[in-house]
Amino acid sequence: MAGNSFGQLFKITTFGESHGVAIGVIIDGCPAGLTIDLDFVQSELDKRRPGQSKITTQRKESDTVQVLSGIFEGKSTGTPISLLIPNEDQRSKDYEHNKDVYRPSHADYTYDAKYGIRDHRGGGRSSARETAARVAAGAIAKLLLKHFGIEIFGHVTAVGQINAPNFDSNNLAEALAIREENIVRCADPATAKEMIDFIDSVRKDGDTVGGKIGCVIKNCPAGLGEPVFDKLHADLGKAMLSINAVHGFEYGSGFAGSEMRGSEHNDIFIAGDKPSTLTNFSGGIQGGISNGMDINFTVAFKPVATIMHNQQTINAAGEAAEIKGKGRHDPCVVPRAVIIVEAMGALVLADHLLRQRSAKL
Amino acid sequence: MAGNSFGQLFKITTFGESHGVAIGVIIDGCPAGLTIDLDFVQSELDKRRPGQSKITTQRKESDTVQVLSGIFEGKSTGTPISLLIPNEDQRSKDYEHNKDVYRPSHADYTYDAKYGIRDHRGGGRSSARETAARVAAGAIAKLLLKHFGIEIFGHVTAVGQINAPNFDSNNLAEALAIREENIVRCADPATAKEMIDFIDSVRKDGDTVGGKIGCVIKNCPAGLGEPVFDKLHADLGKAMLSINAVHGFEYGSGFAGSEMRGSEHNDIFIAGDKPSTLTNFSGGIQGGISNGMDINFTVAFKPVATIMHNQQTINAAGEAAEIKGKGRHDPCVVPRAVIIVEAMGALVLADHLLRQRSAKL
Amino acid sequence: MAGNSFGQLFKITTFGESHGVAIGVIIDGCPAGLTIDLDFVQSELDKRRPGQSKITTQRKESDTVQVLSGIFEGKSTGTPISLLIPNEDQRSKDYEHNKDVYRPSHADYTYDAKYGIRDHRGGGRSSARETAARVAAGAIAKLLLKHFGIEIFGHVTAVGQINAPNFDSNNLAEALAIREENIVRCADPATAKEMIDFIDSVRKDGDTVGGKIGCVIKNCPAGLGEPVFDKLHADLGKAMLSINAVHGFEYGSGFAGSEMRGSEHNDIFIAGDKPSTLTNFSGGIQGGISNGMDINFTVAFKPVATIMHNQQTINAAGEAAEIKGKGRHDPCVVPRAVIIVEAMGALVLADHLLRQRSAKL
Amino acid sequence: MAGNSFGQLFKITTFGESHGVAIGVIIDGCPAGLTIDLDFVQSELDKRRPGQSKITTQRKESDTVQVLSGIFEGKSTGTPISLLIPNEDQRSKDYEHNKDVYRPSHADYTYDAKYGIRDHRGGGRSSARETAARVAAGAIAKLLLKHFGIEIFGHVTAVGQINAPNFDSNNLAEALAIREENIVRCADPATAKEMIDFIDSVRKDGDTVGGKIGCVIKNCPAGLGEPVFDKLHADLGKAMLSINAVHGFEYGSGFAGSEMRGSEHNDIFIAGDKPSTLTNFSGGIQGGISNGMDINFTVAFKPVATIMHNQQTINAAGEAAEIKGKGRHDPCVVPRAVIIVEAMGALVLADHLLRQRSAKL
Repeated sequence: MAGNSFGQLFKITTFGESHGVAIGVIIDGCPAGLTIDLDFVQSELDKRRPGQSKITTQRKESDTVQVLSGIFEGKSTGTPISLLIPNEDQRSKDYEHNKDVYRPSHADYTYDAKYGIRDHRGGGRSSARETAARVAAGAIAKLLLKHFGIEIFGHVTAVGQINAPNFDSNNLAEALAIREENIVRCADPATAKEMIDFIDSVRKDGDTVGGKIGCVIKNCPAGLGEPVFDKLHADLGKAMLSINAVHGFEYGSGFAGSEMRGSEHNDIFIAGDKPSTLTNFSGGIQGGISNGMDINFTVAFKPVATIMHNQQTINAAGEAAEIKGKGRHDPCVVPRAVIIVEAMGALVLADHLLRQRSAKL
Repeated sequence: MAGNSFGQLFKITTFGESHGVAIGVIIDGCPAGLTIDLDFVQSELDKRRPGQSKITTQRKESDTVQVLSGIFEGKSTGTPISLLIPNEDQRSKDYEHNKDVYRPSHADYTYDAKYGIRDHRGGGRSSARETAARVAAGAIAKLLLKHFGIEIFGHVTAVGQINAPNFDSNNLAEALAIREENIVRCADPATAKEMIDFIDSVRKDGDTVGGKIGCVIKNCPAGLGEPVFDKLHADLGKAMLSINAVHGFEYGSGFAGSEMRGSEHNDIFIAGDKPSTLTNFSGGIQGGISNGMDINFTVAFKPVATIMHNQQTINAAGEAAEIKGKGRHDPCVVPRAVIIVEAMGALVLADHLLRQRSAKL
Repeated sequence: MAGNSFGQLFKITTFGESHGVAIGVIIDGCPAGLTIDLDFVQSELDKRRPGQSKITTQRKESDTVQVLSGIFEGKSTGTPISLLIPNEDQRSKDYEHNKDVYRPSHADYTYDAKYGIRDHRGGGRSSARETAARVAAGAIAKLLLKHFGIEIFGHVTAVGQINAPNFDSNNLAEALAIREENIVRCADPATAKEMIDFIDSVRKDGDTVGGKIGCVIKNCPAGLGEPVFDKLHADLGKAMLSINAVHGFEYGSGFAGSEMRGSEHNDIFIAGDKPSTLTNFSGGIQGGISNGMDINFTVAFKPVATIMHNQQTINAAGEAAEIKGKGRHDPCVVPRAVIIVEAMGALVLADHLLRQRSAKL
Repeated sequence: MAGNSFGQLFKITTFGESHGVAIGVIIDGCPAGLTIDLDFVQSELDKRRPGQSKITTQRKESDTVQVLSGIFEGKSTGTPISLLIPNEDQRSKDYEHNKDVYRPSHADYTYDAKYGIRDHRGGGRSSARETAARVAAGAIAKLLLKHFGIEIFGHVTAVGQINAPNFDSNNLAEALAIREENIVRCADPATAKEMIDFIDSVRKDGDTVGGKIGCVIKNCPAGLGEPVFDKLHADLGKAMLSINAVHGFEYGSGFAGSEMRGSEHNDIFIAGDKPSTLTNFSGGIQGGISNGMDINFTVAFKPVATIMHNQQTINAAGEAAEIKGKGRHDPCVVPRAVIIVEAMGALVLADHLLRQRSAKL
């Protein structure tokens, strides 16, 4: 109930604060017999960790994953997989100044309102550091999906008002190669350059900026998703909205679809080896259930709240106060968030893949 | 796991197919002692039922609610509240023609892919008729919220490309009165007229059109929402995305927020009787937890898939086929969906209101 | 959370009070494609309904089941199966006398303590009438188990101090035939006669008596049960202890096993077509997981609290009061409870059968 | 679904294998603001750890608990409390001999049947070592209960056929002192001596023996427990049956109650400051809900399966094999299991204490 778990059959529970001993995750429900490539898990964490480039926070965390349980001789055993990521660069005293002051658009005030107590060091549990645990678990989910031929790919489609053109989703390996060649993680090299320059200028202003991430899931079998409340896109939406700084989610035709007519929006079925559709305004999901076409969705991130400017605010006593811009933060979260979006998407798919096993006799 | 339940502590489970005996809902977890105004529950259902006006489907269903359990001498007893809505206007034979043909952008094909069997009459379980059960349960949730002073209000903010201006959310009673005076349920009378004319013309074309619904929640206490996966807006998002035809969700600054800078997006705290913020780009939620400001979000609906045109498609054998436009359907769902959006929003709030009771010692 | 649901993947939610409009159950998660024999469901209800014989309550309820959803052309569709059982013989005024008086060893006082409000008519939600809904759902679970060759059989093994000898569990069809030939539902005819005479004499005293039910599950595949908290016997135990009047549960060697030594208690494995054990003190479950041997357990029921004697008690104001013996009640619950024990056992097995589908890659 | 979590609002998830890196537990849902006495947590673990006395296993594990998250400046923060217990004395090679051989009455065969793979070192996940994590979590639950004045006390009531007399439950502090003065943890010193001598003789035979643990919960407020499936005693029963080696559970009058008549079994209410009953055959629970009287129950443990004798069995290929008695094991589990029983009882109560917060308006 306290909301630290996600998934039903492939279920994760994360724990840990940004400046505590460690963060981590328990994966409960990974089927036995899956080969676990720990180098892959670490490589996923490396894509999220801070200090990667000039446009990410300069905090230093190696984010080295340790396995505590659930893997034996390289395979999952069906018992809980526990993954631990020790915290290293904690500089807690960086946060002494905001112990009793509520940072604007952060969770300081709301945590106090909720719990009456707050670990003020670096956001504590509200820190995006928690998402490293999701990435580790998502990597295991990706291995499960890969076993069944399902691929997931995200990239940055917008930074501020700079938008990337559509990319060719029929060659995800190539798109991934291009994405990893630039530090903003956009599948279009020209746009990437523009985005990077823009983020860098924003950073120099001591400011931050929002952006968008697009994600596509290929080779998803038809039939995943539960039809009423746990529609596949509803679970994807919740997964994405649970990521720090996300303010919007759309799939298929999305918000633009609300302006269309049924006669142009309907996806006509085409006969073939397996059913397909001429267009894909449905985003690969109909009635909440995958139809075998590409699943695609977009996630909108607000700008990071920590800026290097002084801001007016209030303190814990409710009095006016000033907060000074300090610390090491991302000018734009989307480059590092790409891997978090993929991880959460993989977790949703892994869960529904298992849930589908009980749908028929 | 089969996804017919929603909520954790204030939990509902719906059942029923559009052309079966009845649909209904069990509410498990409504606190004992709540006065249940059944006239209010019925009046909510009346706002969703078909046949209300020229711009909704002409199906005739009175959607009369029956209480089977959980209410004694006008009050909730703490035991499951079971509400039944018999199906009346079933004309199942209207659907014989699409028994073996997959309607484009419907759930016919995906249900077959998922279950290997399908109740083809009127969409069966995938029909939006299921949402009547949500409205009935949502009405109980609204009564609970009302007991604690929380108000929820939705209205149509867009039909196709026609957008409503902002309305004054400080007087919801007046906004509600205006909304209920027009059949499209928009809080701006001039825009409402434009929307109605447009929907009527679309209907005459045998076509359909999408739209948007905006929703505001007032007087929500600070502290609701669980900080990691069950962020308040993540649960709201899932709730909305689980409604038939929804393709997008945003809260606070939403998608537009992804184009902003932190220095303009941050909501500065103001000292006062209780903390408030100068702007509300956070949409009343920070770190996934309500901060006491108005919660606001927008939901995007795609156009209804059933159009009065003939369309190419495939049949259950995978062969090319044609589907004829028939039946009685909505040219645009948003006028009736306003009450569904409110219902789902109320269910999320009621659940988190109870969950908050365990947050502190 | 309010405890009206049972099971994870094969999940039921019951609703209804003894003197309300109806009771019923929603089964969420029954796999699609199962042939539903409604005559069988009704025949199971007939074995539990009141008024069967001189040793059961004389209340008249036909307990006729109605299907509201989830079954189409004789098969489960994967959507929620909703079963309704209208209440008929309600004589609520029989209960006016105990509106404000707490009956000893009933739930009157504890409901008031919990909820601050109570539907006093016939026990309301605390009435064993709720178990009719479990029997209906259990019948569907039995159909699922039967599809996979699993059988479940319960019978009365003790009434007061009268104990039945062991029966031959290798021929359950025969045991069932014998059991249904006597009104106490014991698989041994001679003991059955003795039990019936005893219950009848207790009844004439206006008194009640407890008893025990033994249950065996045959052809359960090895591998069912989750190893830590959801051990197969732990879920069976909870299921049985949730039945009204149950005060004890044991499986395999049970309480007697606590007096044994390991050298006599260990079940030696025997090589063969499939592994089996020489003895079965494990009751078919090792480490919480079925091993393919017969699963067996025993359930202890206390005597019914309603007796035809006057008793001292207190009223809602906490003052001394007297309660008069009245109404129509069972002198001993075990004859009717046999079918409830089987139903709950079937529900546990059906759930774990589906859960096992996600255990391996 | 994989069964490694327990509880709904006060929820724990355990992880770890006996010979892996560590075991541990995440507590999700502990209310914020609880003072956490870590010395108390460690002292509880000390009561369960191996190597305590001549009648427990001689394995050496200090079972030192580490806090990874959820506690700040000595208080719970409302975020997940993660507790880690590193494994120390792992001697995995002690278990090479049974890599491919199924030990009788252990979980070796059933794990292979379930998962198709098994960490054979010392029972892996099926080892009772997992219960150390429960004890750590149970200690936090006890601190929560203590805050509300609720006490829980267990002791050994039987070893083989040696039974302890009733003890005075009105002075739990004294009973605890007596219990901790003897290595078998019986509240009666004379019986304790007899039990110790018996266990020691069994140990010298290379054999093992079963036993029973009785538990009492004092000062539980009336109103805890959910009336239908999650009856307080049903959850207690499941909790106890989930402990390794438990074969039976009874509460209140228990199995003996099945032989009684209603007229002798009914607990007559007595007027007073708060309602109480003359007798307590109900074991403090009526209709599944606590009534304010002492809650009491008994748990039956089978003898440990590991004996120092050679035994016939089969190997993973299904062929006859012999298993040699080896390793360091308990001749009788009940002395160490007392603290596990208390821990599981405390977890159930803590959970229902929070659940009760949503029962009324």
